[in-house]
Amino acid sequence: MLEGTKAHATETMEHAKKDGKTSLILVVSKGGADMAYPSLILATTARALGMDAHMYFTFWGMQLLTPEGRKKAMDVFPPELQKKIAEKFPTLEQFMQAAKAAGVRIHACSPTMDMFGLSKDQLVGEVDDVIGASTYLELASRSDAMTLFI
Amino acid sequence: MLEGTKAHATETMEHAKKDGKTSLILVVSKGGADMAYPSLILATTARALGMDAHMYFTFWGMQLLTPEGRKKAMDVFPPELQKKIAEKFPTLEQFMQAAKAAGVRIHACSPTMDMFGLSKDQLVGEVDDVIGASTYLELASRSDAMTLFI
Amino acid sequence: MLEGTKAHATETMEHAKKDGKTSLILVVSKGGADMAYPSLILATTARALGMDAHMYFTFWGMQLLTPEGRKKAMDVFPPELQKKIAEKFPTLEQFMQAAKAAGVRIHACSPTMDMFGLSKDQLVGEVDDVIGASTYLELASRSDAMTLFI
Repeated sequence: MLEGTKAHATETMEHAKKDGKTSLILVVSKGGADMAYPSLILATTARALGMDAHMYFTFWGMQLLTPEGRKKAMDVFPPELQKKIAEKFPTLEQFMQAAKAAGVRIHACSPTMDMFGLSKDQLVGEVDDVIGASTYLELASRSDAMTLFI
Repeated sequence: MLEGTKAHATETMEHAKKDGKTSLILVVSKGGADMAYPSLILATTARALGMDAHMYFTFWGMQLLTPEGRKKAMDVFPPELQKKIAEKFPTLEQFMQAAKAAGVRIHACSPTMDMFGLSKDQLVGEVDDVIGASTYLELASRSDAMTLFI
Repeated sequence: MLEGTKAHATETMEHAKKDGKTSLILVVSKGGADMAYPSLILATTARALGMDAHMYFTFWGMQLLTPEGRKKAMDVFPPELQKKIAEKFPTLEQFMQAAKAAGVRIHACSPTMDMFGLSKDQLVGEVDDVIGASTYLELASRSDAMTLFI
């Protein structure tokens, strides 16, 4: 799905440096793979374009940060579609590891962890840190940032 | 959930004044408490950081602006989670009143009211006014605004 | 629902030219009419205000770009609400055609087409082109753009 990314990269980075936004800050609020894949595609594409990329997992999105929840996330798809996706895309675990390796920053939401009774040692290893809404707003309110609620 | 907010406030307000966005404009399009809580947390945290905060309730989100709909919003949670949330968070009614008291502006969407056959006197008292998509876009397109569709 | 739009148009366009964002870039990720209507209302209102408007249909949103999917999109509503909406709003087909005529640009997401095994000739005639995440990010990261994930 990154076809054409490299072709665009140089042009876009030039544009970004001159004029546009250079950070993508995603709020990932849903637990299903149907919203996890678009989030990861956007975050890794942003990195390929030379942008900073942050994923702030909150509410149902926290399910993607536990080993069991990340597997169960595929249940939103009917079995036939699960097979098709498995042929063309990495698993969510592989994709999150690739995102992390590409420099995407992974943040877990502290009030959600409190609400669901989760501690940091129950989360997957890709989590960089645990932050709250104020830190998210600080990141997203910078003039060079764009932000999406997914 | 506002832990750490005050610690960040001074730094962020300084940043915001110099460089970043100073208004948060939320479109609240879902009727369940699972998206209402994140919306209210973001809006009140924005106010605590010295930002302007607007909530534009549209489509299913309009359910949160009627007394009955606001109570039924908790039905998205299994009973056990409802109990946990009640221990740690204010009710949606209390939270919306607190948001209002903190200066969050509450807008109801006029085409949605028309679609659902609602009049303003059926809405909760926290509603500031009834606006349409053009007023939302005017607020959200200002250069100092950030906007999320929730 | 466009009542009041013209009254606002001159003022907002003046504002936009001086200071604000002049493009609205929507990611349409859901397949139901409940999110399609708000998307189309926002995009056409943006055009009425003199802004550029782009709709990037991705994931479940791709269903809105096939003739059958666009009809089935109304199934999210109970029959009574379907009737009410039909009285006050154009059909999704009519609305998308009107949006297109008003200058809204309609983009289909290439990785989603690949995932669902769709080719361009299966899509409705309103589609302008097929793009990927990098082109979306290029559009949305411009300093004069605002973007929403719907």
